[in-house]
Amino acid sequence: METLKALILNCSLKKSEEQSNTDVMLKDFTNVFDSKHMKSEVIRVADYNVAYGIAADMGNGDEWPKLLEKVKQADILILASPVWLGEKSSISKKVLERLNGSSSETNEQGQPIFYNKVAGAVVTGNEDGAKNAAGDLIFGLAQLGFAIPPNPIAYWVGEAGPRPSYIEAEGYKSDFTQSNIQMASHNLVHLAKILQEHPIPAEGNVSE
Amino acid sequence: METLKALILNCSLKKSEEQSNTDVMLKDFTNVFDSKHMKSEVIRVADYNVAYGIAADMGNGDEWPKLLEKVKQADILILASPVWLGEKSSISKKVLERLNGSSSETNEQGQPIFYNKVAGAVVTGNEDGAKNAAGDLIFGLAQLGFAIPPNPIAYWVGEAGPRPSYIEAEGYKSDFTQSNIQMASHNLVHLAKILQEHPIPAEGNVSE
Amino acid sequence: METLKALILNCSLKKSEEQSNTDVMLKDFTNVFDSKHMKSEVIRVADYNVAYGIAADMGNGDEWPKLLEKVKQADILILASPVWLGEKSSISKKVLERLNGSSSETNEQGQPIFYNKVAGAVVTGNEDGAKNAAGDLIFGLAQLGFAIPPNPIAYWVGEAGPRPSYIEAEGYKSDFTQSNIQMASHNLVHLAKILQEHPIPAEGNVSE
Amino acid sequence: METLKALILNCSLKKSEEQSNTDVMLKDFTNVFDSKHMKSEVIRVADYNVAYGIAADMGNGDEWPKLLEKVKQADILILASPVWLGEKSSISKKVLERLNGSSSETNEQGQPIFYNKVAGAVVTGNEDGAKNAAGDLIFGLAQLGFAIPPNPIAYWVGEAGPRPSYIEAEGYKSDFTQSNIQMASHNLVHLAKILQEHPIPAEGNVSE
Repeated sequence: METLKALILNCSLKKSEEQSNTDVMLKDFTNVFDSKHMKSEVIRVADYNVAYGIAADMGNGDEWPKLLEKVKQADILILASPVWLGEKSSISKKVLERLNGSSSETNEQGQPIFYNKVAGAVVTGNEDGAKNAAGDLIFGLAQLGFAIPPNPIAYWVGEAGPRPSYIEAEGYKSDFTQSNIQMASHNLVHLAKILQEHPIPAEGNVSE
Repeated sequence: METLKALILNCSLKKSEEQSNTDVMLKDFTNVFDSKHMKSEVIRVADYNVAYGIAADMGNGDEWPKLLEKVKQADILILASPVWLGEKSSISKKVLERLNGSSSETNEQGQPIFYNKVAGAVVTGNEDGAKNAAGDLIFGLAQLGFAIPPNPIAYWVGEAGPRPSYIEAEGYKSDFTQSNIQMASHNLVHLAKILQEHPIPAEGNVSE
Repeated sequence: METLKALILNCSLKKSEEQSNTDVMLKDFTNVFDSKHMKSEVIRVADYNVAYGIAADMGNGDEWPKLLEKVKQADILILASPVWLGEKSSISKKVLERLNGSSSETNEQGQPIFYNKVAGAVVTGNEDGAKNAAGDLIFGLAQLGFAIPPNPIAYWVGEAGPRPSYIEAEGYKSDFTQSNIQMASHNLVHLAKILQEHPIPAEGNVSE
Repeated sequence: METLKALILNCSLKKSEEQSNTDVMLKDFTNVFDSKHMKSEVIRVADYNVAYGIAADMGNGDEWPKLLEKVKQADILILASPVWLGEKSSISKKVLERLNGSSSETNEQGQPIFYNKVAGAVVTGNEDGAKNAAGDLIFGLAQLGFAIPPNPIAYWVGEAGPRPSYIEAEGYKSDFTQSNIQMASHNLVHLAKILQEHPIPAEGNVSE
């Protein structure tokens, strides 16, 4: 067996020089991946010059191809997003659009290239909108060819209204959120391992 | 290996005495299941007296327990819905609510009872709204513990505006929709078979 | 000026013999309407035998026509919903479907019958999903011909995870939610009054 | 009366050197505005260097302040978006995020600065997703303080699957879409005019 690799794209609106509340939750994910002797990498998408458009490479200094290469190498992809206006971030939508630009690329079997990879979502916000954000991400990834394990998301948001965020509110102490993190991280690993050993047969899903 | 069983809940607003456009697409699914020597059953939810509420049995003649028993026996669950106002039907939401009523029930491993089952969605409408409807269904089912294969949905809608529906418009002749049907049906079978032979380990996903 | 009338349809899954958390927030709305010498009525939709379908009257004891008549008499319509699985209730979707059944009916000017009425939404839940629920309701009502004032919703949900609901959690003490209630209730009245005195001209919106 | 001004932000992923299908539909809107002797302007947001973040001005060459100034001058704001993956574009979400950065700014009455402005949405795509995209835009704008007229959207999408877009498919010949355009454009003008003459009173909606 090859070592499983997890890629986490943190779609915060902030560059990595600023603290992201979501990063704290992501650390809990990478701890689980470490305990499984997996490789994992967390990337702040805002650090890269990712162009707008629906193509694998938009040229003119577009840095998406660097991220796309990492997605191709990964067995597990997690999209992480803050909540703004009750929805996922604009950067997370841009990532879905860019992944869509490779949706007609195929693997050696003729299946979409994201087949046999698994995906999940992580969302933090100061209030309401986590499931709406996560649902868009999960469904987008499933349409693109990723497999989704049970309980594929972890999230924390505070009570309705503008309030302290994850770190300040100590949301990481929430039993519910910790249980989410354990379920999502373990199920991503479980399903990735199962699909690594038993890939989805090339039948009914091969473009002609 | 035990024979795989598929359950399709058609959440049309009409009882089975009236024709459902969605049923025509579902026939294509059951044909694939037949070719795999699987058992499959299509049920019109509107034929049953399904109560409102969040519990496994709401009493007073509630017929959901009959449907829940079928869900428990199934390896594959497909929720099928028409599109109204750009969204899934009210009956399909009621089904999600009722499934939610069993979300704390566990299997012998201590996992939610929907683990190791796979789920997909089928949507037809005369116009816009299929992905919005399907996305809600897929995400709801993933949260409840179902695993989602790649390309888990099949749909057809016509051009924007009030127009002929699937049967009258001969939407079943659409290459795109036929390709959807093949991908979704085969991937549901593939993943169900893989999970039947290699269930998700009870680690990180067991309630205490 | 005629006295303005507000109709609030509480789309809880429970009948009125059971307490609805949402009703407590609705009382704050009717207090504002009372202070404006308006008439208002709160109806628990689950108390009525509302059939499934897309028509003004589905027959067979369908009680929607009673509710539809009240909608027609009202200047303000508020749809209130609990949150289940991060979404509005199945009953609130059924109400949108039934309203849709009258979408081709016109007033004396030839405009859809919901023109010059204003609409808002109220959502309570124990956790995440309020904006997703409210957004579906607001957009559905706007498509049907209702006008939407600024800040048209009031909501309360607790921190992520299964937690106490509005009454038990004393959510009504939230300054944020109280501010929502004041904005939504007043803006509904303001816009209803403006449109009562200055209706939307019959130009560009008249079916031929 | 002052002349009404309409601002249309086309949130296509393409810069204006490339043709946008949505622009063709927007031309139909500006024709209506011209016939009303209004001023209107269509801006391709991708032409501007709009930063990510939740503030009125993110600095470092951020060009959002130029667009924000135009929003402040406008009586009518239309957000126009293509459909990608069944959803609005990432650029349209970024615009909502940036508008959100001014949500605590108030007018002379102490109301949010977007009060007494009206908003609508325009969506074109080659297939399914228009209402989902438009619904997010409409609800986001309503939360920020814009008023929404009845039938506030115009859209066109083709039959399910990858197909020709608006121009190539001659979607502009659709009676349904043309009727949408008439309703949305006229109702935006009607409500903007009513609110210009009869603004929403500063009661219940004033921050303290």
